[in-house]
Amino acid sequence: MDVDPAWLPPALFRAVGSRRTLVRGVGELVDTVHGEVATACQRFGGSLARGPRDGSCDLVLDLSASGLGDEDFTLSRDGRTTMVTASGGRGLLYGLFHVVRLGEAAFGGARARETHRPALALRMLDHWDNVAVHPVMGQVERGYAGGSLFWKDGRARPEYGRVRAYARLLAACGINAVAVNNVNVHDTEAHLLTDRVGEVALLAAEFRRYGIRVHLSVTFAAPTVLGGLPSADPLDAAVRAWWAGAVRDVYEVIPDFGGFVVKADSEGRPGPFAYGRSHADGANMLAAALAPYGGTVHWRAFVYDHRQDWRDRTTDRARAAYDHFVPLDGEFAPNAVLQVKHGPMDFQVREPVSPLIGAMPRTRLGVELQATQEYTGQQRHVCWLGPMWSQVLRFRPEGEAGAAVGELARGGLVAVSNVGDDPFWTGHPLAQANLYTCGRLAWQPDAEPRDVLGEWIGLTFPDAPKRLVDGLHAVLDGSWRTYEKYTAPLGVGFMVQPGHHYGPGVDGYEYSPWGTYHFADRDGVGVDRSRATGTGYAAQYAQPWAEVYESPRTCPDELLLFFHHVPYGHVLHGGSTVIQHIYDTHFEGVAEAEEARRVWAGLTGLVDPARHARVAERYEEQLHSAREWRDQVNAYFFRKSGVPDGRGRRIY
Amino acid sequence: MDVDPAWLPPALFRAVGSRRTLVRGVGELVDTVHGEVATACQRFGGSLARGPRDGSCDLVLDLSASGLGDEDFTLSRDGRTTMVTASGGRGLLYGLFHVVRLGEAAFGGARARETHRPALALRMLDHWDNVAVHPVMGQVERGYAGGSLFWKDGRARPEYGRVRAYARLLAACGINAVAVNNVNVHDTEAHLLTDRVGEVALLAAEFRRYGIRVHLSVTFAAPTVLGGLPSADPLDAAVRAWWAGAVRDVYEVIPDFGGFVVKADSEGRPGPFAYGRSHADGANMLAAALAPYGGTVHWRAFVYDHRQDWRDRTTDRARAAYDHFVPLDGEFAPNAVLQVKHGPMDFQVREPVSPLIGAMPRTRLGVELQATQEYTGQQRHVCWLGPMWSQVLRFRPEGEAGAAVGELARGGLVAVSNVGDDPFWTGHPLAQANLYTCGRLAWQPDAEPRDVLGEWIGLTFPDAPKRLVDGLHAVLDGSWRTYEKYTAPLGVGFMVQPGHHYGPGVDGYEYSPWGTYHFADRDGVGVDRSRATGTGYAAQYAQPWAEVYESPRTCPDELLLFFHHVPYGHVLHGGSTVIQHIYDTHFEGVAEAEEARRVWAGLTGLVDPARHARVAERYEEQLHSAREWRDQVNAYFFRKSGVPDGRGRRIY
Repeated sequence: MDVDPAWLPPALFRAVGSRRTLVRGVGELVDTVHGEVATACQRFGGSLARGPRDGSCDLVLDLSASGLGDEDFTLSRDGRTTMVTASGGRGLLYGLFHVVRLGEAAFGGARARETHRPALALRMLDHWDNVAVHPVMGQVERGYAGGSLFWKDGRARPEYGRVRAYARLLAACGINAVAVNNVNVHDTEAHLLTDRVGEVALLAAEFRRYGIRVHLSVTFAAPTVLGGLPSADPLDAAVRAWWAGAVRDVYEVIPDFGGFVVKADSEGRPGPFAYGRSHADGANMLAAALAPYGGTVHWRAFVYDHRQDWRDRTTDRARAAYDHFVPLDGEFAPNAVLQVKHGPMDFQVREPVSPLIGAMPRTRLGVELQATQEYTGQQRHVCWLGPMWSQVLRFRPEGEAGAAVGELARGGLVAVSNVGDDPFWTGHPLAQANLYTCGRLAWQPDAEPRDVLGEWIGLTFPDAPKRLVDGLHAVLDGSWRTYEKYTAPLGVGFMVQPGHHYGPGVDGYEYSPWGTYHFADRDGVGVDRSRATGTGYAAQYAQPWAEVYESPRTCPDELLLFFHHVPYGHVLHGGSTVIQHIYDTHFEGVAEAEEARRVWAGLTGLVDPARHARVAERYEEQLHSAREWRDQVNAYFFRKSGVPDGRGRRIY
Repeated sequence: MDVDPAWLPPALFRAVGSRRTLVRGVGELVDTVHGEVATACQRFGGSLARGPRDGSCDLVLDLSASGLGDEDFTLSRDGRTTMVTASGGRGLLYGLFHVVRLGEAAFGGARARETHRPALALRMLDHWDNVAVHPVMGQVERGYAGGSLFWKDGRARPEYGRVRAYARLLAACGINAVAVNNVNVHDTEAHLLTDRVGEVALLAAEFRRYGIRVHLSVTFAAPTVLGGLPSADPLDAAVRAWWAGAVRDVYEVIPDFGGFVVKADSEGRPGPFAYGRSHADGANMLAAALAPYGGTVHWRAFVYDHRQDWRDRTTDRARAAYDHFVPLDGEFAPNAVLQVKHGPMDFQVREPVSPLIGAMPRTRLGVELQATQEYTGQQRHVCWLGPMWSQVLRFRPEGEAGAAVGELARGGLVAVSNVGDDPFWTGHPLAQANLYTCGRLAWQPDAEPRDVLGEWIGLTFPDAPKRLVDGLHAVLDGSWRTYEKYTAPLGVGFMVQPGHHYGPGVDGYEYSPWGTYHFADRDGVGVDRSRATGTGYAAQYAQPWAEVYESPRTCPDELLLFFHHVPYGHVLHGGSTVIQHIYDTHFEGVAEAEEARRVWAGLTGLVDPARHARVAERYEEQLHSAREWRDQVNAYFFRKSGVPDGRGRRIY
C-alpha cells in the first residue's frame, strides 16, 4: 500500500542517516528510536551503534539522563557530537524527531545545552470513528477523508500498515494520546469496553511503539447495556463495582490504557441527569475506577438543550456549558479532565473563547479543538486553522496580567482528528497542515503559528525551492480568514445546510431546535448576548472581557454579531457599515480563493503530480462552493435589508 | 395477520349475503364474483347458485350480456330480482361491488335498467416501491405507510396475504392497473424486466383475480445495463430488437401484462436525449415492442432542468413540460400515453392545472395525481385531496365551452399510491379516503367529491350513527383547505425542508438547483410568470386562462403568487392585503386543525379503539407541525416585511 509520507518523507532523514549515531538505553521506545535511525542509515549510508560503547559519534541519543520528565529531552553540541539526552523513552523519541526536523543544522557549530519539554502533558486526538458504519453518519462521524484507519468491515484492523505509520506521524508532531472511537457511542461500539477490548489492545500495541496511549469513548449507560444492571446511577454501589471490574479487565490487556472519553447528557446521550446526579458524580465514578491504574476520564462539557424552542429568545446555548459546570468547580477528581470546546457553540469559523476556560480554577480543564473541518470547508476548502487556534490558546481570560488559555489547559489539548484511510490521510493534502499544527501547538501553545506552518512546509516538501515555499504560504497563511470572509459574517456562525453542514443555508438553522440563530430581519442581524438587554452571556466573562463584549462600541468587529443585534447601518470600527461589510467580505473572500487557485496552478511541476492534481481538483469545488456562499449570503441580506451594494456589484 | 378491511368490512356484505344469488358465466373473474358471494352467504346465511339454472333469485349476476364494454355493467330490478348484466368479467365484478355499495337499497322497489361504465379506460396506481431498500429513499420512495406490500427482504412476496386483499380493495373502487415498482428504477429493480420477471408474474397472478393488470417501471438504459449493448439509442436496430425480445419474454409469463412506466431524461434518469433522439422516439420504440401484445407505454412528461441556477430568473421549471412536449404532438404512437402531472411543478398543495393538458390534441394524455402525501402532510396530517383533484378534473383548459381535464385524460388517470404494509394500509387511517377517492374519480371524473367521501364513510363505517358521519365530514371535508392555510400561501408552493419535504423551511428550496423559488424580499413575494414582464408561462394557456392568469387583477387569489410577484400590501379580491392574508390564514389553519382534533376526540366510542387512537396520535403531530408552519411562515414574512399583524397576534 502506498502511504503518503506527509511530514516524514524519507529525504528528511538524510542528515541523520548519513552519519554515525549511537543509541544508549533499553526499552520499547529505545527500540523504536534505534529502528528509525537504522532505517535512515540503511538508506543514506550512515552507521549505528547501540549500548554503552563509546566512540567518535556524530549523534548520541542517550536515555541515561536524570532530572528530566518522561517526555523531556535536552539537545547540545560540543562542536563534534550532537547529544540528545532523555530520561524516558518518549523524550528520546521526541529528541530524535527534533534532530530530524533540524536536519543539517543539527550538526553544525556549537550548541549550548537546551531543554525541551512539552507545555501540556496531554496532547490528544479524538477519532469520531464508528466500528459499524452508521446509517446517517457513516463510518467516521464528520469525517472527510474516507473510512476509518482503525475499523473496517466491523472489526479492528491493526494489521493495516497505516495504523503504525499514523502513530509515527503523530509522535513526530508530539501527539501522545488517541481515542479510537466516536464520542457518540452506538451499540456495536459500546462493546469495545468489554468483550471486544482485545481489538482495542491490538491497536494499542501499534500506538505504544510511538509512545501514544490509547483511550476509549464509552457510554455512560454501559452498566445497563453491557452489564445488565437495572441502573447506571453513579452513586449505586453495584454500578461502581461494575465499572471497577470493567476497568480492571481493560488494564489487564492494555497496561498503559489512557482512559475514557465521555459525552454524557449531551445531544441525547445517556448521563447522570437521569439519576438526579451531577456531572461531577458521573465523572468521579469513572475517575475512581481508573485511578488505581493511572487512567484519566475526559468528561466533555458539551452539554446544552438541543431541543430548544426557536421562539424563545431567553435561552442561550452559548451560556450552557458555563451554567452547567461552573457550580461544580472543585468537585471533580484529580484524574478527571473537563474537556471544553474552545468556543461556546460548536467549532464555528469564529467564536469567542469559551468563558468556562479560566472560570474553574479548581478543575483540570482540557481544551478541545476540531481538526476535522466540519464547519470550515470539510477538507474540500483550504482552511488552515493555525491562526484561529493560536488566538484561542493565547487568549487571556482575565486580561493581560492573567494566564493564557494554553496555560490554563492543564488537562491538555485535544483535537478531533481529520484523518481517514484516504491516500493523503486528510482528503485534502493541505489539510495535513491542520493535523501537524494541532500537535505542535499542544507541545508549545504560544508558538507562532506561521512558524509552525513553515516547519510543516519544510518537512512535507523537503528542499522546496523558495517559489514553492512562498506559494504554500500564499495559499495557506490567510486561508482561514478567506473562508471566514465568504461564509457567516462577523461571528454570527452557522448559516449552513442542516445535517451535513456543508455549503450555505442562511436560514438553515434559524427555526431549528439547536439553539443556533442569527435573528436577521429587515432592520438588522445578530444575537444580543449583552447583560443589559440580552441573554447575559457576556457577563459570564471575567473583566476586562465582560465589559469589552458588553457594548457594540467596544466589542471587536469580528465578534460583533455574536454579541449584539445591530442595524444593517451600524458602523464598524473598520469604518464600514455592517451590510457593506457583508457584501465586501463576500466578494473579497471569493476573489482570494480565486487567487489561491491561481497560485496553486502556478506550482505545477514543483509538487508531485498526484498531490498537485488532488489539490487542484478541490480548488474547483472550493470555488464553486465559495461563489454559492457569496451569492446566497449577499442575496439573503440584500433581499432583507434592501440596501444596495455601495460598489454596484451584482447581487441576485 | 390482521388486515384492516378499509372500505370492505364484512358487514357491508349483509344485504347480498343474506339473500339468494345466481351467478351466470365462466372465467377467472366470474370465479372471483362467485367466491365473494359465497363468502358473504356463508357469513350471513344466504344461498348461491351458479350456472344456467333458473329460479326465484333475489340477485342475478349474469355475464351473458352483449353490447357492453368489458368493464361495463347494467343494473335493473323488476320488483323481485335485482339483475346485474355484463359482457366481461370485470364488468360483472364491478357490478357486484356496486350492489354491495348499495346494500339494502339494491333490493327494494323497482329500478329501470341503468348502464354503468367507467369514464376512463385506465385507472391506475403507481407504486414507488423499491425491491432493495434504497439508502436514501428507503423501501418506498415518498412512502409514509411502512414497507412495501410487494417486496420484502429483496424479493417479491406474493404469498403475503395482503397483496390479494389489496387487489380486492382496489377493484372495489374501480382501479384496474398497478405499477409495482418505483419510476426511479435502481440497479436491483432493473432486473424485474428480465431475469426477475417471474416475481412480477407471481404478483400479477394475485392482481388478475380482481381484474387488475400489472405494469413495470423500466429504465431506458435497460439494453445497456441488462442487455450488454453498447447503446440504448431508440433508433438503433439492435436496441429495438432487444426490447422486442424482452417484451416477448415478459408476455410469455404475464399474458395480460399492462406495459411500462418510464421516467426518462428526468432528475438524472437516462433517456433518449443522450442519443440526440426525442421523447417521441424513445416512447415509440417501447410502444412498438408492446403493441403486438396490447401493452401500453406510460411516458412521463416530468422533464425539467433539475440543475438550474437559482440566480437565473428567466428559466422557469413550470414551463418545462409544455416546452418539451407540445412540439411532439402527433408523433406519439397510439399505445403510448404521455403521463402528465396535474400541475406544472410537483404535487404542491395548490398549483394551476398543467397547460400541457389540452395542448396536445393528437396525443393520448394520462393525468397523474399523487395520493401519497409527499407535500401534503405525509399521512401525519389529515388532508383529504378529493376537492383538489376534482377541481383539476373539472377544469376546462379552453374555457366553459371546451372539454374538462377528466375528458381530455384519454390515457387514463394515474395516482401515486399511498399504501404500504402498515396495519391501516395508509399509515393515517383517514388517508384511506384519498386512495378510495382516486379510484372513484377515475371511474367518474365529474363526480361530486363530497359524495365520494360520503360513500367512503358509509362503506368504511357501516351503520355509522349520524354523529360519526357528521364528525368524519367535519374533519375531512375542509382538510385540504386547512392544510393549505397553514403552509405555503397563495399558490407559491414548496417552503418545505429539503430532501424529505416534511415541515416548514421557507427558504428550504430558495437557493437550490431545483427551480422552486418564491423570491420573497422585503417588499414583496411571488414569481412573475406573466407574458408581459415574467417568464411567459401564463401564455402557455389557451384563452381565457392565458388572459385570466396574465394580470394580478384577474388572477384568482389562490394562485396569485404562482403567477405574480406582488408587494405585501397588494389587495386581494377577498379584500385583505397579501401580508395580512398570510397571517390570517396561518392562524386560521392552526385553529381549524385544533378544532378537527377536538371533533375527533369527541368521536371516542364511535370508532374502534385502535383506529381512534392512531388518528388521535397523528393529530398531536399534525398540531405540533401546523404550529411550526404557522410560526415559521409568519415570522419569516414579518421579519422580512416589517408589517405587524393587523390583529395584534403573536408573531416571533
